[in-house]
Amino acid sequence: MPVMDYARRQKTFQQKIVDEELDGFVVTHAANLRYLCGYTGSNGLLLFLAGRGVFFTDGRYTEQAREEVKGARVVIAKGPLMPEAAKVLGKLSSAAVGFEVDLTTVATAKQMKDSVHRRIAWKSTTGLIMRQRMIKDADELKLIRDAVALGAKVYEQALQIVRPGVREVEVAGTLEFAARQAGADGMSFDTIVAAGKRGALPHGHASLQPLPRRGFVVIDSGVILRGYCSDMTRTVHMGLVSRVERAWYEAVLEAQLVGIATVRPGVTAGEVDEATRSVLRKARLDRYFTHSTGHGVGLEIHEPPRLGKNQNERLVPGMVVTIEPGIYVPGKGGVRIEDMVVVTGNGCEVLTPVTKDLIEVRAS
Amino acid sequence: MPVMDYARRQKTFQQKIVDEELDGFVVTHAANLRYLCGYTGSNGLLLFLAGRGVFFTDGRYTEQAREEVKGARVVIAKGPLMPEAAKVLGKLSSAAVGFEVDLTTVATAKQMKDSVHRRIAWKSTTGLIMRQRMIKDADELKLIRDAVALGAKVYEQALQIVRPGVREVEVAGTLEFAARQAGADGMSFDTIVAAGKRGALPHGHASLQPLPRRGFVVIDSGVILRGYCSDMTRTVHMGLVSRVERAWYEAVLEAQLVGIATVRPGVTAGEVDEATRSVLRKARLDRYFTHSTGHGVGLEIHEPPRLGKNQNERLVPGMVVTIEPGIYVPGKGGVRIEDMVVVTGNGCEVLTPVTKDLIEVRAS
Repeated sequence: MPVMDYARRQKTFQQKIVDEELDGFVVTHAANLRYLCGYTGSNGLLLFLAGRGVFFTDGRYTEQAREEVKGARVVIAKGPLMPEAAKVLGKLSSAAVGFEVDLTTVATAKQMKDSVHRRIAWKSTTGLIMRQRMIKDADELKLIRDAVALGAKVYEQALQIVRPGVREVEVAGTLEFAARQAGADGMSFDTIVAAGKRGALPHGHASLQPLPRRGFVVIDSGVILRGYCSDMTRTVHMGLVSRVERAWYEAVLEAQLVGIATVRPGVTAGEVDEATRSVLRKARLDRYFTHSTGHGVGLEIHEPPRLGKNQNERLVPGMVVTIEPGIYVPGKGGVRIEDMVVVTGNGCEVLTPVTKDLIEVRAS
Repeated sequence: MPVMDYARRQKTFQQKIVDEELDGFVVTHAANLRYLCGYTGSNGLLLFLAGRGVFFTDGRYTEQAREEVKGARVVIAKGPLMPEAAKVLGKLSSAAVGFEVDLTTVATAKQMKDSVHRRIAWKSTTGLIMRQRMIKDADELKLIRDAVALGAKVYEQALQIVRPGVREVEVAGTLEFAARQAGADGMSFDTIVAAGKRGALPHGHASLQPLPRRGFVVIDSGVILRGYCSDMTRTVHMGLVSRVERAWYEAVLEAQLVGIATVRPGVTAGEVDEATRSVLRKARLDRYFTHSTGHGVGLEIHEPPRLGKNQNERLVPGMVVTIEPGIYVPGKGGVRIEDMVVVTGNGCEVLTPVTKDLIEVRAS
């Protein structure tokens, strides 16, 4: 495992805190804790105060926190963490302390407010850490490449058993077992294996249904390797494709390739979405494309930016996103093709190393 | 799959809404949506208003929502769901609408407030649906029994491959693959296989480390079957146990049995916790018991009640909880034994059908 440069991440974040005219910041979201200080457990709270970190957790994580947490003093709390953090804050005569409104419940916000004296002011912020995480650093890109490579490898292992009569869950199980054997932490989401009509459910988790003799099978899967997620989709066809089915596949593939070709610094997320959508519009299939073109991926499977309609976020080098147009024809089936790409200086690099040629699976 | 009695659940919840002097309620938490109306996708919003339900989701879930949602009209929103729900609320001249403070972020609460006119009053509530879910109905108990039975079966399959040199992830992978093959939706949490010193991490997810010739191995796993979670832990020993290790195991087992014997209607969650803790205190091992005795299980792996220190919740028939004392000796290892039990009219029934006799695994 590469030693992550937590010091640099904390320094960058500290600068953001200062820019927001805050004296401190409270971090509780698991992925943000892992990003900023390396902690991988649950129930953690990182308090930044004047450039110094104090990390709180409970007795279950004593050993783990001492091993993992970088750049912060570790405090093991006997009860809830917020009152413990409040004790530290309470020593200050006054302070403006930030928290993230989209990651903090109304109940927690009330607890925060009630547990400190009145001259500690809580300040709402949105996406402060997430915006930092949106642009991956070199350590992260290396881990993401490894995760994507493993995700591709286990997909190809699972593809070996795809044939009529094999159940969707066996395909998913084979893929997941291979991931485990290779040391994955787990799967980045419930594996989707959706055959025939079930392919028209964009999120059709693997079921006990056997694969049919004819029809598309959508396989969408991802692993988590050393904390980082992969995400890829391929659609294969059982038996020979009809002319109509081939036209669907080719339209989705063209949309996906045009989407990839659109990705470069300065382009907005919405422009990439519009690029894939316009290909499907020309093929009169856009009404079946019922989701966004893609999303960021990193420590979490869904991160900003969202490549959806009218999204104004501009792409910058180091962002890692999926490009995954799809069509879902009720009663018939679905096709989706998805790669992960990293935005480079003048375009993007496709990370997912798996063919997108249409595969027709014959009964053996 | 049994047809759940959603009508009855909604009626019970409607009565709670009335009792709280509310005209309506907004539900967005996935498990609560599934419980109240059967929807299993993400991004859903259920608006209760004067006993009638309106369910909102996006285009990805059109087919799924129409198939699954019971007792509510389905609306497919083009964008974020809250503004769509607000349109319905906006037609009322005034209303008091509840939402759950511990499941709603500060950002969402602000969006809720901003999207309706001033005579729609948002009212904070806590655990209104969760408290209903805490007591399982007959449909749920059947599904929980099935999940526990499957969880036990796949644990026993994985136990077959436990021997020195086999890696922790292979044990976890075998268990998970068996669960998939049997039609599990997935695992209810990251499988824990923690051998030797790693056993001292209460949440030591399966690693690439091979099982040792000697020492405890903690295996904590659960499946999700038709939405419901199972949760069990057994600790086996590689090779012959020493006298000290046997004493640890026996103390934890006694604590677990005493815990189970304490469970009955009217007893508080804290009393059950104190019962297990006092056994370990007598054995001078309580300082190594760094977590609570147990937790509720159902649609989610961690639900109320929490069987922890000073918890005043009184047990009632139909609650399903884990009893899982454990000790974690830094540098040495850990022992945890966990069953799921259902509170009955005069005690409890242990659901987990797996022996708790100490198993010593020999190299074959």
